[in-house]
Amino acid sequence: MRADNRPADALRQVRLTRNYTKHAEGSVLVEFGDTKVICTASVEESVPPFLKGKGQGWVTAEYGMLPRSTGSRMRREAASGKQSGRTQEIQRLIGRSLRAVIDLEKLGERQIQIDCDVIQADGGTRTASITGAYVALADAIDKLLAAGKLAANPLRDQVAAVSVGIVDGVPLLDLDYVEDSGCETDMNVVMTGVGHFVEVQGTAEGVAFSRAEMNQLLDLAEKGIAELQQLQRAARDN
Amino acid sequence: MRADNRPADALRQVRLTRNYTKHAEGSVLVEFGDTKVICTASVEESVPPFLKGKGQGWVTAEYGMLPRSTGSRMRREAASGKQSGRTQEIQRLIGRSLRAVIDLEKLGERQIQIDCDVIQADGGTRTASITGAYVALADAIDKLLAAGKLAANPLRDQVAAVSVGIVDGVPLLDLDYVEDSGCETDMNVVMTGVGHFVEVQGTAEGVAFSRAEMNQLLDLAEKGIAELQQLQRAARDN
Amino acid sequence: MRADNRPADALRQVRLTRNYTKHAEGSVLVEFGDTKVICTASVEESVPPFLKGKGQGWVTAEYGMLPRSTGSRMRREAASGKQSGRTQEIQRLIGRSLRAVIDLEKLGERQIQIDCDVIQADGGTRTASITGAYVALADAIDKLLAAGKLAANPLRDQVAAVSVGIVDGVPLLDLDYVEDSGCETDMNVVMTGVGHFVEVQGTAEGVAFSRAEMNQLLDLAEKGIAELQQLQRAARDN
Amino acid sequence: MRADNRPADALRQVRLTRNYTKHAEGSVLVEFGDTKVICTASVEESVPPFLKGKGQGWVTAEYGMLPRSTGSRMRREAASGKQSGRTQEIQRLIGRSLRAVIDLEKLGERQIQIDCDVIQADGGTRTASITGAYVALADAIDKLLAAGKLAANPLRDQVAAVSVGIVDGVPLLDLDYVEDSGCETDMNVVMTGVGHFVEVQGTAEGVAFSRAEMNQLLDLAEKGIAELQQLQRAARDN
Amino acid sequence: MRADNRPADALRQVRLTRNYTKHAEGSVLVEFGDTKVICTASVEESVPPFLKGKGQGWVTAEYGMLPRSTGSRMRREAASGKQSGRTQEIQRLIGRSLRAVIDLEKLGERQIQIDCDVIQADGGTRTASITGAYVALADAIDKLLAAGKLAANPLRDQVAAVSVGIVDGVPLLDLDYVEDSGCETDMNVVMTGVGHFVEVQGTAEGVAFSRAEMNQLLDLAEKGIAELQQLQRAARDN
Amino acid sequence: MRADNRPADALRQVRLTRNYTKHAEGSVLVEFGDTKVICTASVEESVPPFLKGKGQGWVTAEYGMLPRSTGSRMRREAASGKQSGRTQEIQRLIGRSLRAVIDLEKLGERQIQIDCDVIQADGGTRTASITGAYVALADAIDKLLAAGKLAANPLRDQVAAVSVGIVDGVPLLDLDYVEDSGCETDMNVVMTGVGHFVEVQGTAEGVAFSRAEMNQLLDLAEKGIAELQQLQRAARDN
Repeated sequence: MRADNRPADALRQVRLTRNYTKHAEGSVLVEFGDTKVICTASVEESVPPFLKGKGQGWVTAEYGMLPRSTGSRMRREAASGKQSGRTQEIQRLIGRSLRAVIDLEKLGERQIQIDCDVIQADGGTRTASITGAYVALADAIDKLLAAGKLAANPLRDQVAAVSVGIVDGVPLLDLDYVEDSGCETDMNVVMTGVGHFVEVQGTAEGVAFSRAEMNQLLDLAEKGIAELQQLQRAARDN
Repeated sequence: MRADNRPADALRQVRLTRNYTKHAEGSVLVEFGDTKVICTASVEESVPPFLKGKGQGWVTAEYGMLPRSTGSRMRREAASGKQSGRTQEIQRLIGRSLRAVIDLEKLGERQIQIDCDVIQADGGTRTASITGAYVALADAIDKLLAAGKLAANPLRDQVAAVSVGIVDGVPLLDLDYVEDSGCETDMNVVMTGVGHFVEVQGTAEGVAFSRAEMNQLLDLAEKGIAELQQLQRAARDN
Repeated sequence: MRADNRPADALRQVRLTRNYTKHAEGSVLVEFGDTKVICTASVEESVPPFLKGKGQGWVTAEYGMLPRSTGSRMRREAASGKQSGRTQEIQRLIGRSLRAVIDLEKLGERQIQIDCDVIQADGGTRTASITGAYVALADAIDKLLAAGKLAANPLRDQVAAVSVGIVDGVPLLDLDYVEDSGCETDMNVVMTGVGHFVEVQGTAEGVAFSRAEMNQLLDLAEKGIAELQQLQRAARDN
Repeated sequence: MRADNRPADALRQVRLTRNYTKHAEGSVLVEFGDTKVICTASVEESVPPFLKGKGQGWVTAEYGMLPRSTGSRMRREAASGKQSGRTQEIQRLIGRSLRAVIDLEKLGERQIQIDCDVIQADGGTRTASITGAYVALADAIDKLLAAGKLAANPLRDQVAAVSVGIVDGVPLLDLDYVEDSGCETDMNVVMTGVGHFVEVQGTAEGVAFSRAEMNQLLDLAEKGIAELQQLQRAARDN
Repeated sequence: MRADNRPADALRQVRLTRNYTKHAEGSVLVEFGDTKVICTASVEESVPPFLKGKGQGWVTAEYGMLPRSTGSRMRREAASGKQSGRTQEIQRLIGRSLRAVIDLEKLGERQIQIDCDVIQADGGTRTASITGAYVALADAIDKLLAAGKLAANPLRDQVAAVSVGIVDGVPLLDLDYVEDSGCETDMNVVMTGVGHFVEVQGTAEGVAFSRAEMNQLLDLAEKGIAELQQLQRAARDN
Repeated sequence: MRADNRPADALRQVRLTRNYTKHAEGSVLVEFGDTKVICTASVEESVPPFLKGKGQGWVTAEYGMLPRSTGSRMRREAASGKQSGRTQEIQRLIGRSLRAVIDLEKLGERQIQIDCDVIQADGGTRTASITGAYVALADAIDKLLAAGKLAANPLRDQVAAVSVGIVDGVPLLDLDYVEDSGCETDMNVVMTGVGHFVEVQGTAEGVAFSRAEMNQLLDLAEKGIAELQQLQRAARDN
């Protein structure tokens, strides 16, 4: 049995709290069960050097974990002087996922910087981050539209993400930390509102997985992401 | 007038929320008005190399700010590869302040690592951090006592901190960001429960200050810290 | 048309040259067309600290590119003082892929360090690296077996990798640099000898991709990897 | 008894040797007893980026210790790759102290860079640094005035610093290393020529200190700083 | 006896393979026996900041070793985050040696970046690097001449380098790794085509060496370098 | 004419001041004209990891320049976070030079750490450093002998160093900064008391130099070093 008698194809309780902190143009606390991430979107009226004068904007992301967001304390990356490979992998994934649904030319020569900071971790921090960051990004863009800085909405679609995996032979949706630690296969899936894939990252932790298992996992992910996108729309409508 | 018609000698609204996150032995969200800091205390059953075999423990602290905890986004210290001088100064201050009220021999050969992470900044983040960290530390020690790992409570006293300053010639208690940016003199004061000083750090931002002004500021700090310590005790009694 | 009139489902010319350098226990030059990578396997009779005394070994990988392996010179990572996020992502992928086919307990308390250094790049450096590194790893293990240091072969299966992608709407196998730069979807697939997946990493560079497109890409990858594994066996039999 | 039968309220022998090295616009060897610091002031005809075009100048400071300036050798910060928190704290203090007595607009768009390098340490290196750096700064400004580069002297006042502390219950002026290591309370005080405070940094090393003790320490500091400023004037008059 | 019955005054087998990789303007694999180094020359149409607007070009070099180019694996410099002192010493030597034979004004405001990467090491990597880099540099300059970007050839002379040393009292030319490890004196000599010295770096590893021994070593070096320059000319004539 | 009418084959005024600072086991201020370097020797009763248990000691050196030891201020290496290639090259040279005259087995399992810090630079800082460091090293060894920690003196010989160069076609001994900046060839020579070479490092700054010129420079160096060693002996006899 999963914690709280959760069915294999059910998400944990998901909450999206907008305007969670006051300074950022978009600020969302996203909770996937006990996983809690603060996602902010900061608008900067300039672009990185490689885009200067190209008539387009940029969206990028950084990710971090508070040292004691985890069961045993991790070393603070600012103190150790560098970001781990895992951190860089995750923040690159978040950035790519958001750029997949935004028209960078319509954004104009400005950058939206996403920050996802995990304050409590219980599995799925990267998928929660993408799901929350989309809402923060959309809120920041609304502010730009309201201020007349954008002629048209550069967002082309929604984006959300979920993890799926096989634990003791059973395909499960939205793994918590215990499930994630024990799973044979772990897959993170990012999808748009029309149901297409932005990213699929499947990893065999122990035994390699078959094509049939992969299909089961993708089915679960499609179901979960459709629900997450419904929750994103509901949060944005409040 | 101060924001919210606050009198010159009044604290902002202060809240101490215990057990804010689930993993740490002590976890407190401290709010001084719009300044919000997550303070965690993590117990580690080992000491740093310089204390190995000396029969005593250690308390140390790290401090960080989420990149968009501030009005304009700051660069993430983990990405820039080092902690700023300001960060190091603050975390050294927090560590010294807590060590001033704990008997390190009674703590035994273990370390308590404090993390203070600012999720929203509006002035006074270092004094809020010290005030919240004390409560997290006390909670972590309670867990050690309850588990029978400590024979006696190593805490000798309470500790709390507040900022005071002179703005437009008027001494003020507990400066918010706008007041802090405009003040002539800024002083951070850390005091124990019996009303003695652990740290006094006064800085003339513009004009140097007189001995008389210093005395006015210390009077204000004594009043404010007494109130903060009352709030710490109330939070701990819940 | 693809370069050299290559059909959509064909690999580039693949060469695996064993014993390419003289010091390493395994040393392979792998070529996927104009992509050339030196893969070495170095045996070390110790394990990283986190595995001390656990009765198992470890396989890990590092990846690098010579500064002018690419069309325009890249900055040398040793000179800039850190490995890029892309480099870390790739070397983590190589390590996971190889660990998926080795029994770490049978390997005993020793580490095999894989180094993949790109001397000429033309797309697919990470998949060439995995394919070549497997042969270097197997050669190094043969030396351990021949020296009587291993009682049984810890390798459980073969592993190889290939990239697939959609370019101008057409699914293609084994993308070269020009194809990779222009593709809408890029997928790296790592599979074992029995045809199961170790890693699937699909990324929409521009437009998100459908489930049907994903299936086409996986079909191509299965075909290409079967051929690569045939080439690995042939190289090992020489 | 203090070393050399020094009374509790006496400074150590203080020497200020101007033009100590030949390249810098201001160069002073300051000695507080056995503590010896080379202070140089270097004029640069540009300002840091954050001040470009603002019509004002800047004064900043760096601090270092030769590895064997101390009783046992310290690691060289250039070799370990970063400045310690203590170093950064001290150099920030020196910079603030000097900026407190200079009119940055009158200085014009140029920077004066102060370097304080300890060649022999025996307590009080930061207060000796401030006291010597003021003389180096004043000498550099004299050169700018003599060269007609400044219309008016931007220095508004003198500045000097001293440490005070409580050792075995007795308040002492200008602690040497042995006293500093054994003191209960340590306070560094920076004052202007008119007797106002620029910085007060009091720290309880062991037991917290009372308001009455603080007042005794400030009395001692006022006396000592007045004597140091007399010595600065005498040195500058030679 | 030396390996392969090599006489004391003989070079190892030397090979210079031009156009070894396809992207660089000059690309040479140089082999001194089992020492193999890839040397590339990359043309960049800009100069470093310190030369902006001075009407001259620049030639600089970087050096690296693949981790398992050596008998036991070395740590990857990109992973450890810095280049060793030895690496920096060698790359500075390569750069100075090449700049000694080029007219930087005739090169115009462009930079040629040399990269020397050792893929297999058996002694003499720095002298092989200089010898191979000269050919890569000359090839890159030929491309600039052919493209009409240079009015005249900026190369004034050839340059090549060899190591000499005293092993068991016997002066030897072109030391391999075993000889280099056991030698009493080690000297690296860089000379131009007219037989003048660009660099002489002699080091007593054990016992200091006499003026007579130095002269014997220089005689050997002159002989070896004349042969290397003949090989450079032959390679360039192909 | 040279500054102060110095003949071509004359040293600048050389001073060796022993016991310059009080903490180090050996501490020497060495002056070659206006070049001034503090050389300290620190005894540590342990050896670096690579020598643990090998029954021998070690001598190593670090080198630094105060930021304003030079005509225009250099960036502080501790602030920029790394030592330059030049710094590393020099400190490696100093270490090798001293190790050439000491019997590391007789030194026992301890390390002597040399620090050479330039407080004023006017050319020849590395040769002054070696010359002064030898005296500091000998003084530190005397302390070990006096304390009965060494049975026999591990020093086998003296060592000193000087620069020579060709300026406007004239070979000169002991170049000052102006001469060094304008010279065609620059050579640093390190010799033992019996007149053998420890290091010869000749570099053509502009035009390559002939064998005849090299011999002239070595003649000058032999003369200068003999004089320096006489001064070392005189200083040690005081």
